[in-house]
Amino acid sequence: MKDPIDFYFEFSSPYGYFASTQIEALAEELKRQVRWHPILLGPMFQATGSAPLVEIPVKGQYFVHDFDRTAQLFNIPFQLPEPFPIGTVSAARAMLYVQQKDSALATRLAKRLYHAYFAEGQNISKTEVVLAVAGQVGLSATELEAGIAQDNIKALLKQNVSDAMARGVFGSPFMIVDGESFWGFDRFDHIRRWLQQQA
Amino acid sequence: MKDPIDFYFEFSSPYGYFASTQIEALAEELKRQVRWHPILLGPMFQATGSAPLVEIPVKGQYFVHDFDRTAQLFNIPFQLPEPFPIGTVSAARAMLYVQQKDSALATRLAKRLYHAYFAEGQNISKTEVVLAVAGQVGLSATELEAGIAQDNIKALLKQNVSDAMARGVFGSPFMIVDGESFWGFDRFDHIRRWLQQQA
Repeated sequence: MKDPIDFYFEFSSPYGYFASTQIEALAEELKRQVRWHPILLGPMFQATGSAPLVEIPVKGQYFVHDFDRTAQLFNIPFQLPEPFPIGTVSAARAMLYVQQKDSALATRLAKRLYHAYFAEGQNISKTEVVLAVAGQVGLSATELEAGIAQDNIKALLKQNVSDAMARGVFGSPFMIVDGESFWGFDRFDHIRRWLQQQA
Repeated sequence: MKDPIDFYFEFSSPYGYFASTQIEALAEELKRQVRWHPILLGPMFQATGSAPLVEIPVKGQYFVHDFDRTAQLFNIPFQLPEPFPIGTVSAARAMLYVQQKDSALATRLAKRLYHAYFAEGQNISKTEVVLAVAGQVGLSATELEAGIAQDNIKALLKQNVSDAMARGVFGSPFMIVDGESFWGFDRFDHIRRWLQQQA
């Protein structure tokens, strides 16, 4: 088996969401696994002097339209939620907590959280919403609430963000395959082409 | 015949260059013409608070690598020139001057200028280099030198940049098709998909 695709995503990122709906099909096509890494864009934006897309003059309007259009072109359920963007610390910690026990379940949770926010407009910045969504994939809200409050889970998220930044990750989605970095849902085709050229 | 694709590009933009090598094939596939619009990113970066890609911390390194990789994936001759980026007022004015007389020749000039800079490392920020390159497509250096010094050509470039910004153009390459805006070489496939969905 070839090395997995490292898939970095922020739960508040529309292109991260779009990528999350297609990354497994891409990986299967490339005969690889996916390693899911929830990250936080806040510290990365600080490092690059960047800001949430919709807050950038002129570009912001373009991207609001491009979100809708991209969703439509790839047939992905999407409605820009309100509020947007949001803080996603609880969602990211929840995924990391579950990942330690059952990575397949953690992936289902990630996809369910993304769908709740971007297709159903549920505000997953709120811990109680994260717990309710987790319940829908069979997780215990009580256990998860205690889990994401653990110091080691808080530290793990910080460490993961800092490890990602050390690998050059600065946006969402961000994919690393065989040491090669690709930023953006629009780079899926480049990943395909690049791996074909290496073969 | 359907409406043409408006193709906005800055002569110092690598992705604009990549797009310039493929836009005619895309247009032919879509049974459309291309209208070539040289623009200047400087005023647009001011409007969006943006900066040349390579000057952005962390992202800059990613993009220097992505330039090379994209060129390789699409089999486009490319070597990041030195200096980069550059001012391209002379190149843009030259294209506009020629466009008034012969738009097909102006397109040949644009492609030749891009190739001179990004494949041959010629510094097309210098007027004498622009004139020499123009000579290679059969233009008179003497006439062109006088042409690009005309007040109406200087005013035309300013007007074109401001018209582009009024249409929401903020980057290079930028394509507008049937009123729909697409930013980036990586949006070619979205243009295809979008037009298919409209059909």
